Amino acid sequence: MMAGMDISAVLDHVEANLDAARERWFSLLRIPSISAQPAHAGDCHTAAEWLRDQLAGIGFEASIRSTAGLPVVLATHQGPASAPHLLFYGHYDVQPAEPLALWDRPPFEPALVDGPRGPRVYARGAVDDKGQVMLWLEALRAWKAATGSLPVRATVLIEGEEEIGSPNLEAFIAAHRGELGADVAVISDTGMWDIDTPALTTRLRGMVYTQVTLRAAERDLHSGIFGGAALNPINALTQILGQLQDAEGRVQLDGFYDGIAEISPGLRAEWEGLGFDEGAFLGGIGLAHPVGERGRAPLERVWARPTADINGIWGGYQGPGSKTVIAAEAGAKVSFRLVPGQDPARIAESFRRFVAARAPADAKVTVEVFSASPGIEIEAGGRVVMAAQAALAAEYGRPAVLIGSGGSIPVVESMRRVLGLDSLLMGFGLDDDQVHSPNEKFEWACFHHGIRSHVRLLGELAG
Amino acid sequence: MMAGMDISAVLDHVEANLDAARERWFSLLRIPSISAQPAHAGDCHTAAEWLRDQLAGIGFEASIRSTAGLPVVLATHQGPASAPHLLFYGHYDVQPAEPLALWDRPPFEPALVDGPRGPRVYARGAVDDKGQVMLWLEALRAWKAATGSLPVRATVLIEGEEEIGSPNLEAFIAAHRGELGADVAVISDTGMWDIDTPALTTRLRGMVYTQVTLRAAERDLHSGIFGGAALNPINALTQILGQLQDAEGRVQLDGFYDGIAEISPGLRAEWEGLGFDEGAFLGGIGLAHPVGERGRAPLERVWARPTADINGIWGGYQGPGSKTVIAAEAGAKVSFRLVPGQDPARIAESFRRFVAARAPADAKVTVEVFSASPGIEIEAGGRVVMAAQAALAAEYGRPAVLIGSGGSIPVVESMRRVLGLDSLLMGFGLDDDQVHSPNEKFEWACFHHGIRSHVRLLGELAG
Repeated sequence: MMAGMDISAVLDHVEANLDAARERWFSLLRIPSISAQPAHAGDCHTAAEWLRDQLAGIGFEASIRSTAGLPVVLATHQGPASAPHLLFYGHYDVQPAEPLALWDRPPFEPALVDGPRGPRVYARGAVDDKGQVMLWLEALRAWKAATGSLPVRATVLIEGEEEIGSPNLEAFIAAHRGELGADVAVISDTGMWDIDTPALTTRLRGMVYTQVTLRAAERDLHSGIFGGAALNPINALTQILGQLQDAEGRVQLDGFYDGIAEISPGLRAEWEGLGFDEGAFLGGIGLAHPVGERGRAPLERVWARPTADINGIWGGYQGPGSKTVIAAEAGAKVSFRLVPGQDPARIAESFRRFVAARAPADAKVTVEVFSASPGIEIEAGGRVVMAAQAALAAEYGRPAVLIGSGGSIPVVESMRRVLGLDSLLMGFGLDDDQVHSPNEKFEWACFHHGIRSHVRLLGELAG
Repeated sequence: MMAGMDISAVLDHVEANLDAARERWFSLLRIPSISAQPAHAGDCHTAAEWLRDQLAGIGFEASIRSTAGLPVVLATHQGPASAPHLLFYGHYDVQPAEPLALWDRPPFEPALVDGPRGPRVYARGAVDDKGQVMLWLEALRAWKAATGSLPVRATVLIEGEEEIGSPNLEAFIAAHRGELGADVAVISDTGMWDIDTPALTTRLRGMVYTQVTLRAAERDLHSGIFGGAALNPINALTQILGQLQDAEGRVQLDGFYDGIAEISPGLRAEWEGLGFDEGAFLGGIGLAHPVGERGRAPLERVWARPTADINGIWGGYQGPGSKTVIAAEAGAKVSFRLVPGQDPARIAESFRRFVAARAPADAKVTVEVFSASPGIEIEAGGRVVMAAQAALAAEYGRPAVLIGSGGSIPVVESMRRVLGLDSLLMGFGLDDDQVHSPNEKFEWACFHHGIRSHVRLLGELAG
């Protein structure tokens, strides 16, 4: 194959055209495509059209498709049958910029500014996700410009509602299954370990999210007249939920840890080698003492161990001062972060039984399950992951670390469930990028090496 | 003393003037003196003036005194120095009548209607407290009319803000201490055991009412990124408050039961003899299984044993659906009903220590104490209680039962704390009087025997 020679030419093309790439990026950043604010719906359409035109300009068959909400950009480009077919995913919408007073410059007027680690670009969407979308878009453009073709077959899916929870994405994917067939999804919406250390995210936690309601008397009661006789649903709920963890931080649901494989010694060693400073991590939010399972390493607790968190609780009187009431009802949102091996349906069922077994006589308990998704682990030995590792190692001169994420990325779950696709999560953000906050920025070095890394990835996968 | 003869004449006077008594009662009921609704402030003043005029007509030195809110009616009448000086307390304000659609007739157009146990009067305030105020007012009137004087010295204090929590009463009492000197307070705002069985309320529970706040991180956190590392204040709060009671229903604060005397065998036997139907009591609110301390009799649990009830709880996300948040803070209202022997200040302090001892590292806990009042027991052997027992036994042909109340009556606590006065709680309401609800009523038999009982009480105390 000609990949070696091709890459060199493609990288040269990238270097020779960086100013134009920056100008394109800035053009996209200037469109205030805020999905949460109806006044910006027109801007969202403009951003979609801009991306469609860019893709068409590269040679993609590109179109805008409507959904029940904001439109999706869908594009496809032929490539060699011997190379994998990649499905690139990204989103063109951004978070609201408010509070505007906290920005040092207008959020939709991108500016290249010197920072402590070289130049950086400030703008809403600089990194999330417009900047990261431009990484693979510029890599595809450079390949096409330098070689006249793409080294892989590529399909592009860019949605406009990620920042409002992608309410229409899964339906769209399901309805367009035929156009979205691919071998792997490539998503650039995650982060590096630090500015010099590339990373692939290979673990995501899943989640079971529930709501528990415990009803007692038919109406609110006077705590003088009924106190000592009538069931208090708040006392009962705290007694039940107060047993979620034992003193060692272990979740007490029956079978909760069934099926979880310990992480491999290699991964454990790699994570230990990262030198994660949990004191600084917690210190940044005003805490000093980690919680979670005793005896587990800090990164393991957030990346590879499941949790039980009460996300909300309510009942009775919440206003100022006193009210002597025994409430009729109390409730809570209780969620479990899951790791690979745990069965979400069994966890949900075990939680139902946990609550039912502890509910006192007269308690009418309901447990609603709002969502149930498994933890995801991306096979480290697969062709695409190995290609990404090779690309990142070549670009950065050091191996990429395989990291986890304590959260979920819903589109990854949808890709797997609806399309049967694994996702490659190769992203170039940094922890201090101020994502969703005022003064969002993207380091120029991350943008530059991000484009080059995507160029190399395509070369590694070339057919 | 002439009490025997006097009583007979006074009772005759009552019987001969029942129609007029009913008309006076109805006149008061027609005034919509709703303290909670500013539009009815003028009606509240009208009710106060009406009562002042009635008292003046009987021969009291009566006046209206202003407060920071609605006015107080204050009146005094001389009597023999050898008889006790009674301080009658009542309130002229009533609860709002809403929802009006649930009334069978207009709430401020009193109507005498046949019921299953004889005639009854429907109106807002029929019993609470206008009807009960009229009992002793008519008894005082009858004594004055039949004998030309009162058998005791009497002071009258009728407030207009009881239904909104008496915000200005204690300050008023403190400021008018000199005019309110008496030997005992007489309050007719409680109930009978049943329509044939008179009762004196001799026990009230006190209360310590607190608010607990538990803060963790400086801001709300993402439960994916921080779950397994950062303290969740809701989990922590449920773990702490879930330990308030053990499996036997015993409150777990250190020293919580210190100082409580068991009720006397005589009182225990009397309560057992009441045939209280706890199944019906709980069935009326949709419950079947009593809570509280195991091994304690039903009435003992609500009248003579302390409790711990969480009156409200909050934290995190309470809206529809899911939010994956670890809250910065959670809180709860926690109150303890107290019985005589418990020291409110020590209970409050013990609760502070209970929370502090269970708070995890990083938890910043505050416990605010909103109120702390002791349980009250009225000496059964005292002169006034014995007089009331004699009066009720003579009127009903059976002894009054000595009952408790699970709640507090703040004015009783104020009378004791500010004026050093015990209270005689002789009331004539029934459980089904619909107090605070649509179709409030007072049985004619209760009204009639209530006046006669107060006539007899005055006779028993005559100097």
